Amino acid sequence: MFTQYAAGDTGDGRKGVGPLILPLADTLRPLRQQVFECVRAAGLIPRVQVAKDLGVSPASVTTITSELIESGLIEEVATPPRDGETVRGRPAVALGVRASAHRVAGMKISDREQTAVIVDFAGKLIAEESIPRRPGPMTVAELLVVIETLLDRACETAGLHRADLSGVGMGIPGFVDCAEGVVLWTPLLDTRNVALAALAGARLGLPVWVDNETNLVAMAELWFGAGRGLSDFAVVTIEHGVGMGFVMNHRIYRGAQRVGLELGHTKVQLDGALCRCGQRGCLEAYVADYALAREATTALNWGHKEGQSITVLLESLYDHAKAGNATARSIFRRAGRYLAVGLSNVVNLFDPALIILSGERMRYDYLYAAETLAEMDNLMINTGRPRPPIEIHAWGVRLWAHGAAALALSAVSESLLAANREIAAQ
Amino acid sequence: MFTQYAAGDTGDGRKGVGPLILPLADTLRPLRQQVFECVRAAGLIPRVQVAKDLGVSPASVTTITSELIESGLIEEVATPPRDGETVRGRPAVALGVRASAHRVAGMKISDREQTAVIVDFAGKLIAEESIPRRPGPMTVAELLVVIETLLDRACETAGLHRADLSGVGMGIPGFVDCAEGVVLWTPLLDTRNVALAALAGARLGLPVWVDNETNLVAMAELWFGAGRGLSDFAVVTIEHGVGMGFVMNHRIYRGAQRVGLELGHTKVQLDGALCRCGQRGCLEAYVADYALAREATTALNWGHKEGQSITVLLESLYDHAKAGNATARSIFRRAGRYLAVGLSNVVNLFDPALIILSGERMRYDYLYAAETLAEMDNLMINTGRPRPPIEIHAWGVRLWAHGAAALALSAVSESLLAANREIAAQ
Repeated sequence: MFTQYAAGDTGDGRKGVGPLILPLADTLRPLRQQVFECVRAAGLIPRVQVAKDLGVSPASVTTITSELIESGLIEEVATPPRDGETVRGRPAVALGVRASAHRVAGMKISDREQTAVIVDFAGKLIAEESIPRRPGPMTVAELLVVIETLLDRACETAGLHRADLSGVGMGIPGFVDCAEGVVLWTPLLDTRNVALAALAGARLGLPVWVDNETNLVAMAELWFGAGRGLSDFAVVTIEHGVGMGFVMNHRIYRGAQRVGLELGHTKVQLDGALCRCGQRGCLEAYVADYALAREATTALNWGHKEGQSITVLLESLYDHAKAGNATARSIFRRAGRYLAVGLSNVVNLFDPALIILSGERMRYDYLYAAETLAEMDNLMINTGRPRPPIEIHAWGVRLWAHGAAALALSAVSESLLAANREIAAQ
Repeated sequence: MFTQYAAGDTGDGRKGVGPLILPLADTLRPLRQQVFECVRAAGLIPRVQVAKDLGVSPASVTTITSELIESGLIEEVATPPRDGETVRGRPAVALGVRASAHRVAGMKISDREQTAVIVDFAGKLIAEESIPRRPGPMTVAELLVVIETLLDRACETAGLHRADLSGVGMGIPGFVDCAEGVVLWTPLLDTRNVALAALAGARLGLPVWVDNETNLVAMAELWFGAGRGLSDFAVVTIEHGVGMGFVMNHRIYRGAQRVGLELGHTKVQLDGALCRCGQRGCLEAYVADYALAREATTALNWGHKEGQSITVLLESLYDHAKAGNATARSIFRRAGRYLAVGLSNVVNLFDPALIILSGERMRYDYLYAAETLAEMDNLMINTGRPRPPIEIHAWGVRLWAHGAAALALSAVSESLLAANREIAAQ
């Protein structure tokens, strides 16, 4: 519904922009990184088109693509002639990411199950495994056993050895310092400040990267989804909590101490509703599933029955709202209005080219539809520029794991690209 | 008071960070830009120190610095021996920005006066001029006359011709698309969507860059102030409105459509206080000078006397608060609490290494002191990482103009650095 409403007239954030007077940030990224990302985003692309897209000379592109081919990141692919095309001389050649260059694993460590995927360098799924788990915090030792078991099963399914992988990406809820590889806090572990990347890396004998799970949704959109061609976009997830990821200049932005983007805990009401973090007035205290369940329990006198999951409670609330129950409707309406506050604050501050809404609660799009968008219009400052398009992507667990794989792919390719920078300087 | 409270234990946002597992964004900026910025930030720095700071080989640094010297951006400076040092062989040589390489002008177009400065490439002030003005909107033609007159006066004072300048940076309040050079809306003009960079450029015969005035405060901090060594920091200004500038990865972040960072119009209360933008619940409707004046007028029965400025009204309110008037105190206290909401939302979302508070209202630091910080502690999510330090910089009008000059310096140096990128690829 969102997508229709805000048709993509600014989908790439660039239309209507005249000749630039100040160089945009893009012109200052290393050209070899731009070339690689251009190829990756395009799938298959002729050299001459890369030169056109980046506004550089074909000679520069040829130099850089030769290097990238040599380091195994991309390859030449003969493209079949199109219908009616006569082939003269050599067949046309396009560039593509070399799918077989690397294989990586991605894992989503979550409350209900652990999922792993193995993908090739082009992101194609090779294998998938998952292990259910009891809710509640684990010890680090328990988590490491789960990680190792899961990876070995996925390798077996794929017919691969661990040593065939170039690395493992992992997503986990909570506060994660991706640069240090440290999980500062997660509801899934009984300890704080766990150097998970180092511990898991030692256990698996592979490079491991860990990140907050919402960043991985953003990473998956950047590598495989709607964000492939965009430099700046936001992802907002609504599940047990409210998460946010932000891609700036083609990269995940994490903050100086890698603990930013806590949209769910921005305050939308001074002395407001109690949040599970212990503070008051957090956005997620109005929008997350526990917030809706709390209201349902209070006003509709629906206690949590023994064994009844929050999902069942919310389904029932949703059914009542659809059937016209005024209280049930007002619960969703209030949540929708506060979501509008949160999203309009994201637009007012970050000015993204696109907002992607994701997560299980997005099924209740009744809640996040026309009225929420109308409310956003009342709350976004009128700069004279159109509102960014908003898309809903209802991703399953596998795609979160795909995002974790994208983290590994990104780390592998960035370290290869960075290794070349000194050579390039000489 | 802020500075003492939050002593700079994370001043560079990097202390306590162990060996990095994932390459940080920094490693992917072009090396020649990193070298230039390293020299610029340091003032004077030996080659070997540049190599150490950036973690690259001295050979790479030598290659790049030779290029930068050739293109006139930096120069070698013989450094005098330190006390007690014996000089053997050649004197020690350091690198510095070549001050005489370029001269630029910076202008602040504001409600009360227009100010211009001329600075050299190292940011040293050469001349300064200002012209007072009547408040209220102007026509574009009137503004161009003011700009030209002001620039000519500043040139005369400096003993320079216009042609001696490499460009002019301009700051103006409102919504400005810096990349397009268009003023989308400003309270100072009677028209929307003015291509001010092109119009002023044609009039002056010089390259012109325009930007929102708060971005220029951030730019000034980045080039000349507390942000010289930082990659990510926020600037929040409190005057007639509440503005924000944000430096991400050593560059001003502006958003996909260049209209982001509108902190003053993020919503801190659904259906809240009326803002001068016409919406309700904006942060500045609780914090800006007109918000305080409105409360003073209401509760203390102080009407605006004929000819009495808002400044006089606020001074009186401040005096009453200091003298113990409970209502006057509660006005400042509420503003301080909402400022804490705004600042904690900035921390929760952007995770900056530093927040710089700027603007005239910062004189009332009574208002923004210990209690506001304590409130921030209640509102910031506890990630286990320390709160970023907060510094108050009470900048005068000249320094805003200095920021406009930094915009010009930045554009000039970036276009020179970008021009080299293709050569480097080959």
